[in-house]
Amino acid sequence: MSADKVFHSRSQGIPSEGVKDQYADGKAARVWKKYIGDSNQRTKNYRDFLTGLLKKHGCVRVLDAACGTGIDSMMLVDEGFKVVSVDASDKMLKHALKARWEKRKDSRYDEWVIEEASWQTLPQDVDGFLPGASFDAVICLGNSFAHLLDEYEDQRTQKMCLKNFAKVLKPGGLLFIDHRNYDAMINSGATPGHSIYYNCKYPVDIKTSVLVVRGKPELVALDYCIDATDDGLITEKSEFRLCYFPHRLHSFTRMLDDAFDNRAQHSIYADFQPLERVDNPAYYIHVMQKALN
Amino acid sequence: MSADKVFHSRSQGIPSEGVKDQYADGKAARVWKKYIGDSNQRTKNYRDFLTGLLKKHGCVRVLDAACGTGIDSMMLVDEGFKVVSVDASDKMLKHALKARWEKRKDSRYDEWVIEEASWQTLPQDVDGFLPGASFDAVICLGNSFAHLLDEYEDQRTQKMCLKNFAKVLKPGGLLFIDHRNYDAMINSGATPGHSIYYNCKYPVDIKTSVLVVRGKPELVALDYCIDATDDGLITEKSEFRLCYFPHRLHSFTRMLDDAFDNRAQHSIYADFQPLERVDNPAYYIHVMQKALN
Amino acid sequence: MSADKVFHSRSQGIPSEGVKDQYADGKAARVWKKYIGDSNQRTKNYRDFLTGLLKKHGCVRVLDAACGTGIDSMMLVDEGFKVVSVDASDKMLKHALKARWEKRKDSRYDEWVIEEASWQTLPQDVDGFLPGASFDAVICLGNSFAHLLDEYEDQRTQKMCLKNFAKVLKPGGLLFIDHRNYDAMINSGATPGHSIYYNCKYPVDIKTSVLVVRGKPELVALDYCIDATDDGLITEKSEFRLCYFPHRLHSFTRMLDDAFDNRAQHSIYADFQPLERVDNPAYYIHVMQKALN
Amino acid sequence: MSADKVFHSRSQGIPSEGVKDQYADGKAARVWKKYIGDSNQRTKNYRDFLTGLLKKHGCVRVLDAACGTGIDSMMLVDEGFKVVSVDASDKMLKHALKARWEKRKDSRYDEWVIEEASWQTLPQDVDGFLPGASFDAVICLGNSFAHLLDEYEDQRTQKMCLKNFAKVLKPGGLLFIDHRNYDAMINSGATPGHSIYYNCKYPVDIKTSVLVVRGKPELVALDYCIDATDDGLITEKSEFRLCYFPHRLHSFTRMLDDAFDNRAQHSIYADFQPLERVDNPAYYIHVMQKALN
Repeated sequence: MSADKVFHSRSQGIPSEGVKDQYADGKAARVWKKYIGDSNQRTKNYRDFLTGLLKKHGCVRVLDAACGTGIDSMMLVDEGFKVVSVDASDKMLKHALKARWEKRKDSRYDEWVIEEASWQTLPQDVDGFLPGASFDAVICLGNSFAHLLDEYEDQRTQKMCLKNFAKVLKPGGLLFIDHRNYDAMINSGATPGHSIYYNCKYPVDIKTSVLVVRGKPELVALDYCIDATDDGLITEKSEFRLCYFPHRLHSFTRMLDDAFDNRAQHSIYADFQPLERVDNPAYYIHVMQKALN
Repeated sequence: MSADKVFHSRSQGIPSEGVKDQYADGKAARVWKKYIGDSNQRTKNYRDFLTGLLKKHGCVRVLDAACGTGIDSMMLVDEGFKVVSVDASDKMLKHALKARWEKRKDSRYDEWVIEEASWQTLPQDVDGFLPGASFDAVICLGNSFAHLLDEYEDQRTQKMCLKNFAKVLKPGGLLFIDHRNYDAMINSGATPGHSIYYNCKYPVDIKTSVLVVRGKPELVALDYCIDATDDGLITEKSEFRLCYFPHRLHSFTRMLDDAFDNRAQHSIYADFQPLERVDNPAYYIHVMQKALN
Repeated sequence: MSADKVFHSRSQGIPSEGVKDQYADGKAARVWKKYIGDSNQRTKNYRDFLTGLLKKHGCVRVLDAACGTGIDSMMLVDEGFKVVSVDASDKMLKHALKARWEKRKDSRYDEWVIEEASWQTLPQDVDGFLPGASFDAVICLGNSFAHLLDEYEDQRTQKMCLKNFAKVLKPGGLLFIDHRNYDAMINSGATPGHSIYYNCKYPVDIKTSVLVVRGKPELVALDYCIDATDDGLITEKSEFRLCYFPHRLHSFTRMLDDAFDNRAQHSIYADFQPLERVDNPAYYIHVMQKALN
Repeated sequence: MSADKVFHSRSQGIPSEGVKDQYADGKAARVWKKYIGDSNQRTKNYRDFLTGLLKKHGCVRVLDAACGTGIDSMMLVDEGFKVVSVDASDKMLKHALKARWEKRKDSRYDEWVIEEASWQTLPQDVDGFLPGASFDAVICLGNSFAHLLDEYEDQRTQKMCLKNFAKVLKPGGLLFIDHRNYDAMINSGATPGHSIYYNCKYPVDIKTSVLVVRGKPELVALDYCIDATDDGLITEKSEFRLCYFPHRLHSFTRMLDDAFDNRAQHSIYADFQPLERVDNPAYYIHVMQKALN
């Protein structure tokens, strides 16, 4: 007499247990690549903001902790940084590995390291392929961190991962980490389809679902519907679901400070601009500078 | 790198597909029986309200469209009504069938009909075991109707079921149907643990989850934790999840009117009392009187 | 590059975990009722064999340990035995409970007990609804016992259940238990579609699958395809899968003797006849007489 | 009353639907790499057999249609062949892509092509990354082809894939394809733990399950238990399940001839030796030479 309904945190066809990879079916990775566009389409705002700060602080060795298909890492390699790129998704890494091979004659790419790693075991994972390595900067951008859900309802995993980011930084090193403006999404029930990172040329419709437990938002599911049918290769509308923990600006700020023992310098930007200058930003970007001692 | 999470609309161990029965594992039925208590524990308010109105309108033949373990139907049989009880759950019906057998020497119970039926096919199902039957009253109480979720996001199934209730009523017949005060639950994120129907003697904690899609509440999941450990038979705390569509008073009222072609007399009660007398009711009870022609 | 395949031990739509009931979807129960026919269609051979032996040994109180829809139990009630019927499947019990209600004016049926029980906890379950009860005979027929699969690959559950059958018998009491001729099925890869118990009037096709692990048959799956489309109610060909542990005559005989501490008298019949008289029987029926002290 | 049992064709944690990749969980790929050892451990028999025949027929361009982690392809690249390696599993390809990167200074590896491809769409897939390409030889070894199960029970997919192998070959080109000696496995219920391809230094226990449907073996499941605990990295015994269609020598031979329109020259080897010289081989290797016109 009652219909059954399961609210899956991922697209159909992607296993919910066992394979811990939201991009495991390959389709999401393929469409995602389409969504974020090629490297020339990275917004100038983003590039200027990131490389500007990295250069200003004299950063050389950068860990891209959520490299995905490698597109951001390549921007950094092109700019001359020594980049180590990790991701937990093989489907994503495959694209990065192939892109690197295409550039094998370009000497800047010769030292680009691409490896599988998990945030939960980041120091050990990095030590496994680069013994003793530490970094001038760690970036975790594009709303990646919010992929990590709150399994135990106390954010213990998220806290551990943030501490791991701090751990692999050199003293004085920078962490760039962002999240969507979930405060606004929770209030409005809607997600802006455009991105501050990419110049997506396809129309995108994003269906926003918020799961509120005991009055507290615990999960946001975004069902992307990308109409890339003019493309020739992708002949149907692409739909996939990505799920996020809805970090609120206030509580994420506090959690981040804690991860650096409240000794880091913490700057917050709205869509790459000073906080006060943007009224209703799409993203908040946090930059942490680890204490020197 | 991201934990997986599935928000199931039912307890673990209950299948999400195939068996369309939220009480399929038997445990829920057993604990539910405990939760709602025995027939002596039906609140006087409830009994007086229901039998009072039925008698006032001269109702004799009553269809209990969500009989569950049969406890409400038995209250009506005891009062002398001719009752037909249906439910879609075998686990529930088993309890009703056994209870009827215990009363086989009581002549009032001799005509009590208990059958499996689905709201979606109610007229046909009833016609299958009682050809040509129609009723002076249909009751669908105890927040039962809200079990029906909104699979197609347009409430088509709910609308069809309400029409089916109207269809099996005689002209002038009454439909009693209720729903929790979901408006308050959505706003507060909490569910009152007590019931207006039952005098539950066990402490109950209800964890309330609301799924909001495109800004619209689409699903409420209640995780009941009933501490009946003093009972001897049930030795652990019992947890089970029941899911509901969060009917808002305004829209449910309109949908109900539509189901009766806007020709029924529609009275709304709050916790069995006139609407204006209760400030923040737990339940809304609708009584529809079908037009005479 | 490789297709995926899962060999489920039950029909699609029946959960493989949580609800331990091969008949949980109701459809199997409904079709099964069709398959085994009404009580008039019980074969004379079966009736004469069973009631003959029961009467010869002066049995009065009989436990039907796998009553299903109740059809065999009713045959015994009609013959004047005091019957207690149990099953683990609610979907099956519902049919038995309704059938009993139809006979409520027949005094022989007044004492027919129908309850849910599991073989694994049979003595306790029986004691729960009939304190102190023991039986002159226990029947577990119709290939029911083979439904119990060998989860731990050492037949521990099967051994425990057989001991439980012995436990609820009075000294000198009889256990009737059967199994298909799995020796022949394993060798031929085929299952005879007719039954020695029922006079099924519908054509039945049975697809036989045998799972052989380390050279030892561990599971037989029978996909029944019953063409009851002339029936009017069932409009499609019915398919369902039932799974069995393939008991070989030799090892089952030994396990059964062990369950009675090797002190029972053990007779084996082939299709209700002396073993030596049937060449390639469909079923083996074991009759155990518990030792008197 | 009956335990549930599902016979999965793959290890726990590997999805049975959606992701068509038996190696999807990464663990299997990792253990498999351990199992097959490094390239120095390829048996001399295998290397001599394969490269001997390739050179004898003047083959240059070779398609490795089941490259896995790339170990066989690298053997061929080292020997100077122009290799195109494909696989359907990203988890496998990741290892191959990384191995290629390690060899980027070795000019022989510069032209090694590694791509994702499916046997069902092999000509189109190859045409996508190498327009117009055809090959002097296609290899599909290591019992890879048997991964393809018989979804429709008529081997239609297997037949199509074999035709696709024939299609991408030049006239006179060679197909190397093998399968385990399933005839012996079906008869004995056991699988030899050693390999003719690899010198595995770890103890391996293989539990063999055969699913026989209507008397015909339809599926073989091998549960590998590899004790690589001396390794330091892998600290537990590794268990994983791989499933195969049990090709019998006679019927596979016929199906292969059909795929080449019965116009190819067909040689069969037993463990890389002439058929008559090996008594109970572990593998059969078929070499097809496509007709010249």
